[in-house]
Amino acid sequence: MWNDVPAERIAEGIHRQMIVGHKLMMCRLTLQPHVETAVHSHPHEQMTIVERGRARFTIGDTARVVVAGDVLHFPANVLHGATMLDEEVVLIDVFTPIREEFLS
Amino acid sequence: MWNDVPAERIAEGIHRQMIVGHKLMMCRLTLQPHVETAVHSHPHEQMTIVERGRARFTIGDTARVVVAGDVLHFPANVLHGATMLDEEVVLIDVFTPIREEFLS
Repeated sequence: MWNDVPAERIAEGIHRQMIVGHKLMMCRLTLQPHVETAVHSHPHEQMTIVERGRARFTIGDTARVVVAGDVLHFPANVLHGATMLDEEVVLIDVFTPIREEFLS
Repeated sequence: MWNDVPAERIAEGIHRQMIVGHKLMMCRLTLQPHVETAVHSHPHEQMTIVERGRARFTIGDTARVVVAGDVLHFPANVLHGATMLDEEVVLIDVFTPIREEFLS
């Protein structure tokens, strides 16, 4: 149950919960309205489920507004970033392999 | 948006939607009340998010009832199965690597 998974504040307005497997990892992010995540990339493949709220994502050269029920796919090494809109946003990021740098 | 992803009837009382990446795959399953999925295993690592409903899962030697908001982890090759309880259940299964046998 996500309620039982500790939440870590990883930046201003962003809390992260993690479930860590062997090659599979899930991170649930709770983001305050208007928070931006900087454009970045990583060699890990990612899919993101929008659980709640609305956000504007950029993936490579495209931009789109996503809402609850949307799923995004980020191939390895593709630049991506997001800006939360007017409400709290909850995202579930799934990665393979696991983001070792999150575990330190 | 899951609403835009076609649903395939894969067994009596089970529909599956798929989002297929490179090494990462998401399957959203809608299962009717009381449906059972046979105990099985696969070399793919799996995590399952319970989106809606209640089900009794067995994972290895343990059994538990899961509800919306629960997340399960199935290490590679661990036997698992489930029985839906009295309501429709929606599960999101995440796999790595992808289940090639689902794509034919």
